[in-house]
Amino acid sequence: MRIAELSRLTGVSVPTIKYYQREGLLPPAEFTSPNQARYDDEHVRRLRLIRTLIDIGRLPIATIREVLDHLDQPHADLHQMLGQALKATGCSREPITDEAVAAADRYVDELIIRRGWHVGPYAPARQTVAEVVAALRGLGADDIVMHLDEYAESAERIAATDLEIVRRRAEPHEMVYGAVIATILGDTLVAGLRRLAQEDASARMFARPHSETSAVASAR
Amino acid sequence: MRIAELSRLTGVSVPTIKYYQREGLLPPAEFTSPNQARYDDEHVRRLRLIRTLIDIGRLPIATIREVLDHLDQPHADLHQMLGQALKATGCSREPITDEAVAAADRYVDELIIRRGWHVGPYAPARQTVAEVVAALRGLGADDIVMHLDEYAESAERIAATDLEIVRRRAEPHEMVYGAVIATILGDTLVAGLRRLAQEDASARMFARPHSETSAVASAR
Repeated sequence: MRIAELSRLTGVSVPTIKYYQREGLLPPAEFTSPNQARYDDEHVRRLRLIRTLIDIGRLPIATIREVLDHLDQPHADLHQMLGQALKATGCSREPITDEAVAAADRYVDELIIRRGWHVGPYAPARQTVAEVVAALRGLGADDIVMHLDEYAESAERIAATDLEIVRRRAEPHEMVYGAVIATILGDTLVAGLRRLAQEDASARMFARPHSETSAVASAR
Repeated sequence: MRIAELSRLTGVSVPTIKYYQREGLLPPAEFTSPNQARYDDEHVRRLRLIRTLIDIGRLPIATIREVLDHLDQPHADLHQMLGQALKATGCSREPITDEAVAAADRYVDELIIRRGWHVGPYAPARQTVAEVVAALRGLGADDIVMHLDEYAESAERIAATDLEIVRRRAEPHEMVYGAVIATILGDTLVAGLRRLAQEDASARMFARPHSETSAVASAR
């Protein structure tokens, strides 16, 4: 198909498609003649993925390029392939390093040992968790830190669902693709479901007899 | 204490403290004389919360103002107070509305009925979940959508932990404060724990005999 058709099918404007090509997010078209670029279903699929990572995943272009690079690279070992692709989906901000984070880091090490998790010593998510633990302590919210094992158990269940989805896919490429979108969109999905479940739990725990309707009204 | 001491205790520079005051994030100081502003422990605490919401929660200033406004407002009903504060922590982006999202919205309604959740019809998280479901379907990932109930069950467990933390706090103000930081920092916390648990699940499911050490090496 031509670029106009690609644009129509995906809802992405022609200048934006060209921008993604310049940024290396979209593979080049096949040129059937010097002025005739041809696109195929793989371009449609890739473009939809890019838009979703931007609109729902809210990832910056540089992170998307890194994620897509990993999707395109064949690896011999599926575990390594998943590890590389998912590492790119993590937070790429500057790590915070201070005494409080170092102390929290040891606390996260202990959690990982307690849960028997096989996790590399340089996994970026270790740092993320340590930073949150340090921040919670800094806010005096040690009671939240005390529930870390419960949150870890819920995270295990989520990861088990993620990996079950991956395992059922036939091709290694499809598996990695599935893991990336399940994780990136899954963060937003779980955050949304968590807020719905909180509203339910709060209604059961705290609502006054008349308050179900007023909670509904207040949410308008 | 004076502003210099407030800055030293919190690590936030004096111009930044003044900026937060102009933006209405930080309550005004008490003036003991026309040139002598005095700050107290409540300012220290508030400033630490603001920094955490920016650094870890990555919330924009306008959202932080809204969250803080709810923390400062007394409500008669704890359920409504939690609902209002947590609503402000949701994604404040423009909602996507199209046929695919409308179809996904009905799917989310069914999920809510299936789980017996007490959720108001206009809860913003409904829209978030519907948008993710529509996006997953658009990417051909119906296999992920099929696992929505499993993710919902994990979200219920997370929400139960959140509310347990809230319930154990003594004062309504402390409860809402706890719910807000547990939710905002908790999204990052759960995302980090999920990645660690995924690495573990992937190692168990897919790693070749030699690959544990190489996965570690690849994560450096």
